Amino acid sequence: MRSIITISREFGSGGREIGKTLADDLGIAFYDKELLELAAKESGICEELFVKHDETYTNSFLYSLVMGSYPVTPDGRLNPELPLDHRIFLAQFDTIRKLAQKGPCVIVGRCADYVLKADDRVLNFFITGNMAQKKRRILERYDIEKNKAEDFIRKTDKRRANYYNYYSDMKWGEAKNYDLCINSSKTGIKGAVELMKSYIEIKENRRDEE
Amino acid sequence: MRSIITISREFGSGGREIGKTLADDLGIAFYDKELLELAAKESGICEELFVKHDETYTNSFLYSLVMGSYPVTPDGRLNPELPLDHRIFLAQFDTIRKLAQKGPCVIVGRCADYVLKADDRVLNFFITGNMAQKKRRILERYDIEKNKAEDFIRKTDKRRANYYNYYSDMKWGEAKNYDLCINSSKTGIKGAVELMKSYIEIKENRRDEE
Repeated sequence: MRSIITISREFGSGGREIGKTLADDLGIAFYDKELLELAAKESGICEELFVKHDETYTNSFLYSLVMGSYPVTPDGRLNPELPLDHRIFLAQFDTIRKLAQKGPCVIVGRCADYVLKADDRVLNFFITGNMAQKKRRILERYDIEKNKAEDFIRKTDKRRANYYNYYSDMKWGEAKNYDLCINSSKTGIKGAVELMKSYIEIKENRRDEE
Repeated sequence: MRSIITISREFGSGGREIGKTLADDLGIAFYDKELLELAAKESGICEELFVKHDETYTNSFLYSLVMGSYPVTPDGRLNPELPLDHRIFLAQFDTIRKLAQKGPCVIVGRCADYVLKADDRVLNFFITGNMAQKKRRILERYDIEKNKAEDFIRKTDKRRANYYNYYSDMKWGEAKNYDLCINSSKTGIKGAVELMKSYIEIKENRRDEE
């Protein structure tokens, strides 16, 4: 097993739990929010700001003023003139590449599929779900009013899509960007993990043949 | 096994071969271009017209003039005043529903996932592929110049997407519309069929539990 696995996911689809279970079953590292802490540590930007700007993109007037700035200063640090959103994206970008260099792992969200696009060890998964099941799932986990759950899901997905579409050259949730997309409402968490393991096995065996 | 399986596919991804292999393995009926012949027979529109208008939609001025027309005449036949595209879509719609009533089968393309949306036996698959593999595949099968292959693929997919997006309320190729989307370039035909069989098994066992 030499694959790096990225998981993109609709909010409420169980993508995080699926990724964690898969990583545990395969005995490899797992990064979701853990990435924020690592990227914060490496970039010197405080972690609270990473949490606040996580998978969020704000097209600011300031940004248009500094478009000409270089992302990195001559001594290799992130240019402090770049808007915070972009510095945070670039710090995560850097952390994701370093993690992938270390070996097989599962990374959830944060454009990891785009960041690692050129790496032929990478397998990209996308997890979807039916609205009823997604609502049930988030109502169990978040302190939110029942009649606001659907709106909360739609807005979170919209934010994730905006972030992804802005930083990558692809469209979030389009089947053609991923190796396997699974509707977890019909398979459950365990079923989705089983399918991903089958996909990894098929792919790795074919790679051995080539 | 009580599932009805629909397969949508990028041109050149091997969707037809995958569907045929799956149907043979499961011992159930398979419909792709076969649908055109059946729909033609039932509607009384000549088959050549079905082939010509297959998965094609032309928004005509004529259509806007007849928008008020009923699709079916009082004696149950398709209204001859409807533009041909729409009569052909409606005839296929009708044939797809009749086939699904007969029992498990595999149907490729032609908005079958949308037509059968309310049927809880239905599983919707989408097959994608990398451009290099799709090009290789269609060059083996069609008499086309090498440097025109990519354009041919893009245009065929665009036509399929236009047809789907016009007649359904969904977007062709968006992961959330399907139960499972597979990039066949990494799994091969056999690998994709194996994954689909696993998905069907997981889904059918869960249904039994519920």
